[in-house]
Amino acid sequence: MSVITLTTDFGLDDWFVGAMKGVILGLAPRVTIVDITHAIPPGDIRAGAFTLLQAARCQPPGAIHVAVVDPGVGSERRAIGIQTRNAVFLGPDNGLLSLAVRGESIRSVRQLAQPRLFRQSVSRTFHGRDVFAPVAAHLARGVPFSRVGPPVPDYVRLRWPEPELDGSILHGQVVHIDRFGNAITNLDAARVTIFDKENRGSAIWIRPRRAVPLVECYAAVQPGEPLAVAGSCGWIEIAINGGSAARELGLKVGDPVRVGGRRVGRGKGADG
Amino acid sequence: MSVITLTTDFGLDDWFVGAMKGVILGLAPRVTIVDITHAIPPGDIRAGAFTLLQAARCQPPGAIHVAVVDPGVGSERRAIGIQTRNAVFLGPDNGLLSLAVRGESIRSVRQLAQPRLFRQSVSRTFHGRDVFAPVAAHLARGVPFSRVGPPVPDYVRLRWPEPELDGSILHGQVVHIDRFGNAITNLDAARVTIFDKENRGSAIWIRPRRAVPLVECYAAVQPGEPLAVAGSCGWIEIAINGGSAARELGLKVGDPVRVGGRRVGRGKGADG
Amino acid sequence: MSVITLTTDFGLDDWFVGAMKGVILGLAPRVTIVDITHAIPPGDIRAGAFTLLQAARCQPPGAIHVAVVDPGVGSERRAIGIQTRNAVFLGPDNGLLSLAVRGESIRSVRQLAQPRLFRQSVSRTFHGRDVFAPVAAHLARGVPFSRVGPPVPDYVRLRWPEPELDGSILHGQVVHIDRFGNAITNLDAARVTIFDKENRGSAIWIRPRRAVPLVECYAAVQPGEPLAVAGSCGWIEIAINGGSAARELGLKVGDPVRVGGRRVGRGKGADG
Repeated sequence: MSVITLTTDFGLDDWFVGAMKGVILGLAPRVTIVDITHAIPPGDIRAGAFTLLQAARCQPPGAIHVAVVDPGVGSERRAIGIQTRNAVFLGPDNGLLSLAVRGESIRSVRQLAQPRLFRQSVSRTFHGRDVFAPVAAHLARGVPFSRVGPPVPDYVRLRWPEPELDGSILHGQVVHIDRFGNAITNLDAARVTIFDKENRGSAIWIRPRRAVPLVECYAAVQPGEPLAVAGSCGWIEIAINGGSAARELGLKVGDPVRVGGRRVGRGKGADG
Repeated sequence: MSVITLTTDFGLDDWFVGAMKGVILGLAPRVTIVDITHAIPPGDIRAGAFTLLQAARCQPPGAIHVAVVDPGVGSERRAIGIQTRNAVFLGPDNGLLSLAVRGESIRSVRQLAQPRLFRQSVSRTFHGRDVFAPVAAHLARGVPFSRVGPPVPDYVRLRWPEPELDGSILHGQVVHIDRFGNAITNLDAARVTIFDKENRGSAIWIRPRRAVPLVECYAAVQPGEPLAVAGSCGWIEIAINGGSAARELGLKVGDPVRVGGRRVGRGKGADG
Repeated sequence: MSVITLTTDFGLDDWFVGAMKGVILGLAPRVTIVDITHAIPPGDIRAGAFTLLQAARCQPPGAIHVAVVDPGVGSERRAIGIQTRNAVFLGPDNGLLSLAVRGESIRSVRQLAQPRLFRQSVSRTFHGRDVFAPVAAHLARGVPFSRVGPPVPDYVRLRWPEPELDGSILHGQVVHIDRFGNAITNLDAARVTIFDKENRGSAIWIRPRRAVPLVECYAAVQPGEPLAVAGSCGWIEIAINGGSAARELGLKVGDPVRVGGRRVGRGKGADG
């Protein structure tokens, strides 16, 4: 039986997530539901898309991913499904699904437009419960993806910051702050390693004159010291051993980072 | 196999919810447990009752609902079960179950008084684990409801604010603030629509001289603008497109709202 | 099919927990996963160990407990498994597992060192996903515990404060503050009862000159009044009926408490 994952901005304080699960289990009692998170900041499509991307990579083949960060619910925005080789993604067509399917082999993109697969009465404010949950449950029960609605030629793609190479310098930025205050960047760890052949001893610059050493694990520096490390999703992240890089270094989403250029003299450069 | 739902004020920081689940799964390994929420404010029976009401409507037939907001645990307050046509509700007899069963066809109300269905040793502070969880598991395994204990003639009912019609004005109030800062009122959306035949262009008054337009979805007004909408549970809610009505309009549980009376001239009335 | 429990400091805001569950379900689709908590304060091994101890006692026989509070991830710290008569515990060898297995009959302690049981590529920062989750799933599917790696002679044990008897006074301390602000002590409730034969009317001293009455349930004192009660895990806890003992009495982990010595005259002693 399939896995259905849920990624939303609904929080855990109200009944919203429980309602979605009730609807799913009423239609597909034997499905396994996996909460990715319900703590996406309200309406933050970018954060939802990034989280879905990370989570989807670890799910079993055949997983059905329901993502709902949906400020346009009830308006003309479409509800869509994207079928890849290994999974199905369901959500509003606002860019939320676009990072997770980037680079995947996409088989079909369809509008969710078959009312027989919806909840009997569809509200204008809670399509997580009334549209996405029941469609996911029907798919988990074996309804073919082609039945969800007509194919659509395209879907909204989120603009995503790509690293930029400028001579000998690779420029990136912070794309996520995690629960520990680690600042995840868009610098691909493998590329950084190849880019800078002298991996050990290398550094990531977080400000014009402030670099942190690129090491192999958090504990490679003294407690309280900053570092960069190849994170668990393959991207370089800036951290503090036993601390919060976001708080202590003042890092936030969008902050520039770079690799290459000046070399770091000591373990810690002067602050710019 | 049955669904058991959990609605508590236990939070997710301690082991309380995990302990309840362990007890349930030890007795009924194949049950599916659905967390409604564990973030009911400590001891807030009214909030728990309202949340249970909303969540229960979406659960599969035969669901067993365990609700524990139980400031009187260990005292003389009774533990009860209420069997309706479609579900069983278990919890302390303090009003917590009373909204969810209002209007339902009640088949049986019983005191939970059969120690063989409890955990071997019952603490004085954690009946969620020691009484409600194991009784729910036994019921899920097929123990008949009549075995939980003797029938009781009545149960504690929560006083619930009903809207009041005063001439051409329907008075209600805010009954819940959700995670998005939406203020859910006790005004039935269908009734409001009938009450005010000119649905489009109508307004909900949130202060003597401040009205918000009644529209069909959040995105029907400009970002940052207030609105009223038929919410997903059938009640009128006050929201701000992309914002928090609770924070930006200062709304809280108990605040009066009304429909009818003065008509709203512009999209936004003068603030009273 | 087995239960796998999860106790971590990963929080619920990111994809970390969802990633672990995806890995588990990819290997063992029919396992039931129970979240104990993911809100252990980052890196707080002691809090994680205490929570795991409480939660493990309530799980079904055969449960596999995965605990990850792992500031040393990626360093030389070992990953271990401890098999007891009723359960298996998996986690970093930093003391995290040591309270839960104290007093249990330990059958085997092994280092997790069999890469075939790990995720294909093991990161240096997320062994929850790459080591502990897949090993747990393999065990749940029936891989014998002896296959996880070589036996190790010992494991890191957390220092735990034991109560001390000084003449007629039993000294203890606060070891946990729960979600309600209850201060759980290391004083065994059964021992306190025997120690102080006059159980009713007894008191727990929380400061040199401030005692709270030992009663049978929260509601035994007036709302807003402090009390001590035999908590649900068998330890004495300090609470306020309808309030937060941590906030209102200023209690925190490590604060001394005692039973015996001066007797309490009134329900509430003078504050020292």
